[in-house]
Amino acid sequence: MSLPIPAPESDAFFNPNAIALVGASSSPTRIGGRTLAALLKYGFAGRIYPINPSHDVIQGLKAYARIEDVPDPVDLAVISVPAAEVLDALRSCIAKGVRAVVIYSSGFSEAGGDGVGMQATIRFLARRSGVRVLGPNCLGFMSLPSKTICTFGQAPNMGIPDGGGVSIVSQSGAFGTYTYAAGLFRRMPISRWITTGNEADVDFSDCVEWLVQDPETKVIMGYMEGCRDGAALIRALENARRAGKPVVILKVGRSAAGASAAQSHTAALAGDDQVYDAVFRRYGVCRAASLEEFFDAGYALLHGLAPKGKRAAVITASGGAGVLIADEVSAQGFSLPPVPDDIQLHLKRLVPFAGVGNPIDVTAQVGNDPQLFSQFFSAVAGTGLYDAIFCFQGLSGINREPSERLLSRWTELREKFPDLPIFISAMAKPEVAAVLESKNIPVFDDPSRMVRAAAAMCNRQNGDAMPRPAPVSAAVAWPKLNEVEAVQLLGRAGIPMAAGVVAKSAEEAVARAREIGFPVVLKILSAEIQHKSDVGGVAVGLADEALVREAYENVMSSVRRHLPYAPVDGVLVAPMVNGGVEAIIGARIDPVFGPMVMVGLGGTMVEVLKDVSFCLAPLSLSEARSTLDRLRGAAILDGARGAPAADKEALAEALVRLGDFAAMHAGSIKSVEINPILVRAKGEGVVGLDALIS
Amino acid sequence: MSLPIPAPESDAFFNPNAIALVGASSSPTRIGGRTLAALLKYGFAGRIYPINPSHDVIQGLKAYARIEDVPDPVDLAVISVPAAEVLDALRSCIAKGVRAVVIYSSGFSEAGGDGVGMQATIRFLARRSGVRVLGPNCLGFMSLPSKTICTFGQAPNMGIPDGGGVSIVSQSGAFGTYTYAAGLFRRMPISRWITTGNEADVDFSDCVEWLVQDPETKVIMGYMEGCRDGAALIRALENARRAGKPVVILKVGRSAAGASAAQSHTAALAGDDQVYDAVFRRYGVCRAASLEEFFDAGYALLHGLAPKGKRAAVITASGGAGVLIADEVSAQGFSLPPVPDDIQLHLKRLVPFAGVGNPIDVTAQVGNDPQLFSQFFSAVAGTGLYDAIFCFQGLSGINREPSERLLSRWTELREKFPDLPIFISAMAKPEVAAVLESKNIPVFDDPSRMVRAAAAMCNRQNGDAMPRPAPVSAAVAWPKLNEVEAVQLLGRAGIPMAAGVVAKSAEEAVARAREIGFPVVLKILSAEIQHKSDVGGVAVGLADEALVREAYENVMSSVRRHLPYAPVDGVLVAPMVNGGVEAIIGARIDPVFGPMVMVGLGGTMVEVLKDVSFCLAPLSLSEARSTLDRLRGAAILDGARGAPAADKEALAEALVRLGDFAAMHAGSIKSVEINPILVRAKGEGVVGLDALIS
Repeated sequence: MSLPIPAPESDAFFNPNAIALVGASSSPTRIGGRTLAALLKYGFAGRIYPINPSHDVIQGLKAYARIEDVPDPVDLAVISVPAAEVLDALRSCIAKGVRAVVIYSSGFSEAGGDGVGMQATIRFLARRSGVRVLGPNCLGFMSLPSKTICTFGQAPNMGIPDGGGVSIVSQSGAFGTYTYAAGLFRRMPISRWITTGNEADVDFSDCVEWLVQDPETKVIMGYMEGCRDGAALIRALENARRAGKPVVILKVGRSAAGASAAQSHTAALAGDDQVYDAVFRRYGVCRAASLEEFFDAGYALLHGLAPKGKRAAVITASGGAGVLIADEVSAQGFSLPPVPDDIQLHLKRLVPFAGVGNPIDVTAQVGNDPQLFSQFFSAVAGTGLYDAIFCFQGLSGINREPSERLLSRWTELREKFPDLPIFISAMAKPEVAAVLESKNIPVFDDPSRMVRAAAAMCNRQNGDAMPRPAPVSAAVAWPKLNEVEAVQLLGRAGIPMAAGVVAKSAEEAVARAREIGFPVVLKILSAEIQHKSDVGGVAVGLADEALVREAYENVMSSVRRHLPYAPVDGVLVAPMVNGGVEAIIGARIDPVFGPMVMVGLGGTMVEVLKDVSFCLAPLSLSEARSTLDRLRGAAILDGARGAPAADKEALAEALVRLGDFAAMHAGSIKSVEINPILVRAKGEGVVGLDALIS
Repeated sequence: MSLPIPAPESDAFFNPNAIALVGASSSPTRIGGRTLAALLKYGFAGRIYPINPSHDVIQGLKAYARIEDVPDPVDLAVISVPAAEVLDALRSCIAKGVRAVVIYSSGFSEAGGDGVGMQATIRFLARRSGVRVLGPNCLGFMSLPSKTICTFGQAPNMGIPDGGGVSIVSQSGAFGTYTYAAGLFRRMPISRWITTGNEADVDFSDCVEWLVQDPETKVIMGYMEGCRDGAALIRALENARRAGKPVVILKVGRSAAGASAAQSHTAALAGDDQVYDAVFRRYGVCRAASLEEFFDAGYALLHGLAPKGKRAAVITASGGAGVLIADEVSAQGFSLPPVPDDIQLHLKRLVPFAGVGNPIDVTAQVGNDPQLFSQFFSAVAGTGLYDAIFCFQGLSGINREPSERLLSRWTELREKFPDLPIFISAMAKPEVAAVLESKNIPVFDDPSRMVRAAAAMCNRQNGDAMPRPAPVSAAVAWPKLNEVEAVQLLGRAGIPMAAGVVAKSAEEAVARAREIGFPVVLKILSAEIQHKSDVGGVAVGLADEALVREAYENVMSSVRRHLPYAPVDGVLVAPMVNGGVEAIIGARIDPVFGPMVMVGLGGTMVEVLKDVSFCLAPLSLSEARSTLDRLRGAAILDGARGAPAADKEALAEALVRLGDFAAMHAGSIKSVEINPILVRAKGEGVVGLDALIS
């Protein structure tokens, strides 16, 4: 099979004409023999060349001492020799002209010592030759439509379907195998399955790129522990988004315990979990927190139509199920707009005791008149008011007669409403479910999981993606900046900052305060002091000259007492700014994904509740707005407790500017924090009161 | 079978010797014929008497015109005649001396009109005669060990197991049937299954009481939409707790949309969902939010040992699975204490590349040496450091050889550690899982669900239950109280309140302020004005006599302008209290469950984040403490942002006193709110500044 878009490397893996098995064994149960046995058992149609210097025939096939001895071209080589022999084997494969290599062998970076250097050599050989190498220390891959079963793990024993659109990439071999089995158990039609092992050459992002171009793949599903090259992952995800190919990722390491275990388990950087959230959000990736969410989302994306909004209707013939579904619909952020009055009247005429608001309950009457369900559905769907309709169909997919009614009902309704996202919760036999799935109606036996999967599809729709310009990085080390310098730089970057002036004596402070107007604030000025209040370096509300003079001496002596050796550049005299909502904005350069911004509302919200929200930088104004909206305490900005609404738009703009600043200086800085930044009443803007650049 | 504790009514349902079917039909597919067909098909061992005036023989059994004509005693009657004939049928059953009746017929309170009165009569007849009536408008019940299949729904078609310990009570018939099928699909050994319909007599709580006494029931599982009699539910749950019988409840109506749908669906009060949380928490009920959580918790409670604490270890042979499980373990509030150093060294000697912290990764080495897993497990479990151990066992329960290894491993380990809560995530065939379950080791195919189910067991362990004294209710209507009266009452109830004094003129206010000491606060005093600030009725920080005089006039004129007809009792002069953490405590009398208390931290936390926590009243000090600890912002009381730790204990005591007050006056008041109550530094107590009793 040829690919419409040239993807030569992936084609050499997924559709090879000839495979060489370096280290092939006569025993079908030994690691070196399992792949050959599987290729034979499942009917791989291409040529197979066992490579083994000690045998002439292996598992019935002619064997060659060296790959170079194979008379015909070879596309793919599978290496399962001991670590010490891998480099020679790889060199031979390259010399033979193979295009793709899988290395099962372990004993490389995961083992430390010599293994690290050998792995670097694998990478070097791969990159120099252009041959793509999967592994080492991986469980291989399977391309199911072409029966290219290149794994020594247990996956093939679980069954080899013919494909059907779902492809899985896993950074874990053992868990990847489990995922494969769990996917088959859930009737997922798996097309490609890849484990990436140590990622000497081919990594998770490369696999996503391949699958984006792969016509056999409709949904890309990834298990991920970490990522070394953030730019490559972002590129792959952006390509998937542009191609309209959904991506579901189970990224582990959410918790501190999990992240540190992930680091010890693979060499990959587990990174900061919230950064992954920000990346996935921007590129419309469905992030799953469990294997079940992973498959539910993949299943819904494969078979279902994605809701374009979050207005939902719930239709059942069981009030109880309706309430349960309505609970989950609300929990997932859908609204349940009521059925319009005239339609309610119409439904009441059909069944006087029906629930006709929303959820809609056809009641057990449907047992006497099965047409009622269709009539209710058509009336509700016909309003055009709903982005998604959730239906409960009980046990109707199990026995023959109800199943036939079920299928004819949905055949008819799907013809009437071809583009409407419909989700069904029912017990159904696989063959019944398959018919519904072919009509883009996913079926879940658990009502709550149905709703969660639909919500995951919406989150994908709501991806904030935008083309992300590469950060322009000066890559120049800066000297440490004191507050005045930091404030000035950020002010020039377009973020409104409270102007302060430097004073180096009490008299100078008084003079500056007179110019500014009382009351003023004094703050110690030193590039070495980050938490000024902790060392008595701040005095606020200074209402007259005497207070300023006294405060100057107090601040100086307190700082000298706490930090006798810190270089002090004087004090900063600034107008006392009051009112508004206290917020914090910051930026940092993530080692994997580059510049990010962060926002939180000041005080308790950040410190006790950790209520902060992240976004990749640079970011658009609309991304900045949704970053603010994701704060749990976002309503504070809308004027809680009788306060006027705050200037959210100005805060969003400051976030955009800060993102640009961080991207521009990504090579020079580690982090920026403006804390506090006061958000004044609508139209009055924001003003940053203190800043720290490191 | 006889019951060890007398429970005559439930025995008449669960183990009848003779059943009469009033309205029996010859057609096994009609509602009146289905029950008879099912009793015959599944081999009910007792006598069956079809009652139908128009036939002599029905489905092969001799029929009687009237139940009174049956020559022998009848324990249970099933009524499936039209609504208009139900009362006569019921009277005949009572005359015959039956002990239990099921009424399938609909057309009662759910239909309104005459149905309401007929249902009241059913209740009256049942209560007067002592005959227990299930229904009307219900799908009946099944007692599986005795093959008493009394339902006209689809449940029996799904299979009739022999029981095994799980009993289900459902307020919804259709959803109850779905739940039955979903339970069987998940291999739940169901013993009793009851739908309660309109609950004219037997209600959800009665069924829980029966199941508490039922030796066939090990786990009670309930689907609930609402409850009319809170005291009865509490009594049933408390009895379950005392009997050590776990209860899992799927209570729908969590969301506003769901709650209003529940009200339209059943006549029951959906109640305030947070009140149900408080009830379930106190009585150690596992609350499930989805059908899946419901069965996972039930399954874990049936087969597993409950962890006594939340110190967990995770042992896998797949690093990936280990990270995934560690994430969920953390998310569910378990800790992951590291393996002690000497044990780590021991494990490293066994497998140099193993992960030996926690999660523990035996690595793929286990493939070469299957004993390794047991060695790792024994070493970790042997420390005695862990309350629960979570293991991932991959695909090992599917094929014959690995399954045998799996079972011998866990047989040996269970003998070694007979009381240790062990949870396994693996793909396993039912017969393999059954062996593990018999050793109190539950098996889940999804690792995250395994952890969540174990956490649900812990929540049950952590139930705050205590004997709850019946509220002493004066049931006397009080006059409206103004703030002084409210503050005085609460002060006498033991809650520290800021003393204020009444002044009826500006000069009097000045005199009172002089006595109290400046600064003071003035607040309008009126039983009719609830939000004093909104009408300009509050002045704070009054530092001298002139300010008090001016404030008095301002407050009076502002209130008169806003509310010219409100009766004003003067102003309240109170000391200006500053500092401390602002909190709100309140109480209300729930129409179903009686007195409750509520606490929140003031301002944004309550108003924007709705961060409040509830508890039934009266409550113990330890319950009050955990009510505080459940606040998301609880850390604020521990001294966030450099503030000193607040007097949490005093706040907990105030909550206890408020609970006693609410319980004492449950018949006279609707609600109490003390807002704000200042929580001062540790040891300095709390002081309520304002109070409202209605």
